[in-house]
Amino acid sequence: MQAGKSLSPLLTDLYEMTMAAAYYRREMCSPATFSLFVREYPSHRGYLVSAGLEHVLDYLEAFQFDQKDLGYLKDTGLFPGEFLDYLETIRFTGNVHAIPEGRLFFKDEPVLEITAPIIEAQLLESFVINVINLQVSIATKASRCVHAAQGRNLIDFSLRRTQGMDAGLKVARASYLAGFGGTSNVLGGKAYGIPISGTMAHSFITSFEEEIVAFRAFAETFPDNTVLLIDTYDTIAGAKKAAEVGKEMERRGYSLKGVRLDSGDMAQLSKDVRKVLTDCGLESVKIFASGAFDEYKITDVLQKGAEIDAFGIGTKMGVSADAPYTDMAYKLVQYGNRPVLKLSTGKKTLVSKKQVFRTRTDTRIIQDSIALREEEMEGEPLLKPVMEKGERTDPQEPLATMRQRFSEEFALLDDCYKALKDPDEFPVKLGPELKKLQEKVVRKVIKKELGES
Amino acid sequence: MQAGKSLSPLLTDLYEMTMAAAYYRREMCSPATFSLFVREYPSHRGYLVSAGLEHVLDYLEAFQFDQKDLGYLKDTGLFPGEFLDYLETIRFTGNVHAIPEGRLFFKDEPVLEITAPIIEAQLLESFVINVINLQVSIATKASRCVHAAQGRNLIDFSLRRTQGMDAGLKVARASYLAGFGGTSNVLGGKAYGIPISGTMAHSFITSFEEEIVAFRAFAETFPDNTVLLIDTYDTIAGAKKAAEVGKEMERRGYSLKGVRLDSGDMAQLSKDVRKVLTDCGLESVKIFASGAFDEYKITDVLQKGAEIDAFGIGTKMGVSADAPYTDMAYKLVQYGNRPVLKLSTGKKTLVSKKQVFRTRTDTRIIQDSIALREEEMEGEPLLKPVMEKGERTDPQEPLATMRQRFSEEFALLDDCYKALKDPDEFPVKLGPELKKLQEKVVRKVIKKELGES
Repeated sequence: MQAGKSLSPLLTDLYEMTMAAAYYRREMCSPATFSLFVREYPSHRGYLVSAGLEHVLDYLEAFQFDQKDLGYLKDTGLFPGEFLDYLETIRFTGNVHAIPEGRLFFKDEPVLEITAPIIEAQLLESFVINVINLQVSIATKASRCVHAAQGRNLIDFSLRRTQGMDAGLKVARASYLAGFGGTSNVLGGKAYGIPISGTMAHSFITSFEEEIVAFRAFAETFPDNTVLLIDTYDTIAGAKKAAEVGKEMERRGYSLKGVRLDSGDMAQLSKDVRKVLTDCGLESVKIFASGAFDEYKITDVLQKGAEIDAFGIGTKMGVSADAPYTDMAYKLVQYGNRPVLKLSTGKKTLVSKKQVFRTRTDTRIIQDSIALREEEMEGEPLLKPVMEKGERTDPQEPLATMRQRFSEEFALLDDCYKALKDPDEFPVKLGPELKKLQEKVVRKVIKKELGES
Repeated sequence: MQAGKSLSPLLTDLYEMTMAAAYYRREMCSPATFSLFVREYPSHRGYLVSAGLEHVLDYLEAFQFDQKDLGYLKDTGLFPGEFLDYLETIRFTGNVHAIPEGRLFFKDEPVLEITAPIIEAQLLESFVINVINLQVSIATKASRCVHAAQGRNLIDFSLRRTQGMDAGLKVARASYLAGFGGTSNVLGGKAYGIPISGTMAHSFITSFEEEIVAFRAFAETFPDNTVLLIDTYDTIAGAKKAAEVGKEMERRGYSLKGVRLDSGDMAQLSKDVRKVLTDCGLESVKIFASGAFDEYKITDVLQKGAEIDAFGIGTKMGVSADAPYTDMAYKLVQYGNRPVLKLSTGKKTLVSKKQVFRTRTDTRIIQDSIALREEEMEGEPLLKPVMEKGERTDPQEPLATMRQRFSEEFALLDDCYKALKDPDEFPVKLGPELKKLQEKVVRKVIKKELGES
């Protein structure tokens, strides 16, 4: 569940396997290049964050059908025995170019290209889209929350309502990559080395006869790390009790670290709670807020002057609620030496192996160009060779490195592209050679497929 | 990843563990009852479908910390050694009552209640919400698609854009439970015994020099199961080529099973394609449609007279795009003999162990009542004992049984509650004893917690 190592190659759509069987029968084994890209921005997005590549590489390294997989496929009665014998031997032997995790990318740009014998490259489609789509969606959403929070710390609280456990782990990772400070997800912390964080639930409060007794019990157990949840019955009454416990802690040589608000009018309550704390001389106690926060609600409460030091960000980030998927596609762009495309309404693809070039000044990124892989263009090439003949070109990259990379590049992106609503469209051009080839292939295909009809 | 069997108990929020440590220090080991329920319907929903219980029971049966888990917890430096020694011995020893999978339930109704020593019941919170929330959201969404399709077959095509691989499997299961006919997800088919289904992708077409050559190659490999994707270049031109291949297949003693449309104006194209097929004497060829379908788009194309026999339903169902989460909570309702609740703004809970009673006639369900567990009410009690002292009361139920249960009960729900927009609210009342106890506890809590402030 965590990464690709132990995942079954049956995590695929049946049609990948029936197509593979047809390729096999026709002895089609030329190298194919598939390109992974986003056709349209999700609503209100003006950029995307590359994320999830490590899990693709893990999966490719381990790609192999075991006897149980093959037994199931045999039992379906769909596949010739010869093809199943072939599947037993299949491994991933291809090359992968990708934009490293943590970098920004834009629509139409290939974030990953796989070149491999067509059967291998085809079978991977469902997995590759799934893994990258989720983490790109979440890293992008999380980066919007980070931008809205203007330097305040954010913690991923989403595990309970992510769409499954795999998503829970990937959300912890992708949100940390995009600048969150930690996660409440214990296994996420263990799996990816992310700082873990947590306070208490309402059940803790209600399990005690009185709220203040619950506060004291927690403070005794975790005197160095006490954040008290104060809205179970009434937030202001809770703040006063928390302040009382905070003073008791001071007398024992400890400090109350914070209080958490989880319901009600957060802007007003945070000011009122700050006053309660200040009146008791507890200026250093942090106010932590949670409850349906996302980039929009963060912006709203901060505009209203909320005195909140940190946010727990749950469901709406964890499912990217306003844009729960990205229109990401994995399309064949070259077979053998032949550049290919489809013309389906609203779903056109760019032909051939590509590279993306980015131009920038010292302080901002200016423009991207999508070009043919071998085309010479100004700017930094973003797609790097990350796997050759089925083996990684470099060892696994630490998540901290990707996180730092994101933080640095995000600072170079103008605010107009980061606007939470109706952002400007970042300029992405086509290289002249790609443009020429694209037009030539479109003409050829139209002539061949429609001229005859 | 598939079920609960091998999942780590670290799939939890850190606060569950810090609370557990505080309970442990205070020697709090009385039985606690937690209630899992939905506070508000997701937008445009008027009912919910119970789903995911089996995975909770699997998880509870296997619940155990291993040495790696404990090593990680020790390394965090957060927990006393004595508490970690205790965690090593912990197993789930409690009781579970639940509404069986496939039944309808409504807001405020407990779909599951767990009674166990408080530490056990607390540690499960994140997992239980996660598993049930996802499957309820998806089964409910899928049931809306089934309702809209008016008997046409639906296939789950969502794997590539579900939020992770775990979600991919759970969506295959939950959508089948709610009446889908199958899934494209091969591992989903293997894991849950769901029929698998698939056609071909655009990459198959474009990998051949000509579209019709691709059609022929597929028809030769799968002569009994050929559904041709016809929109790669132009849908009508594609339909004519498919018809040509269909006639060739007839001459060899086979039949073309279907064609698939994946883009463009589906209502109009389906009529035009039907005409192409009929003009060639291919009346029996089915028209299959995919591409951004959900209950709304199905309704739209059918109202426009689309001649579509079956639908592939992908992303929008697979992430429940218009309602990607359900406002589901797991709340302490009783500790020892004391009924408890919280008063947080907009997040009130109902006290104590409960039962839900459903009244019906032969042809429709009429009303539910939420009552105390021991309260005597008219109607069928929906919550069944499914686990006692940590062991299942019954063997695992086949998915087909749940699917049948759903189909039967869904037919008894009036259409006014199934409306895709602004459905009526199904009548759910509170039993008199529950109402009385609730009021008493609210008064007591207000007096104790707010009277003092």
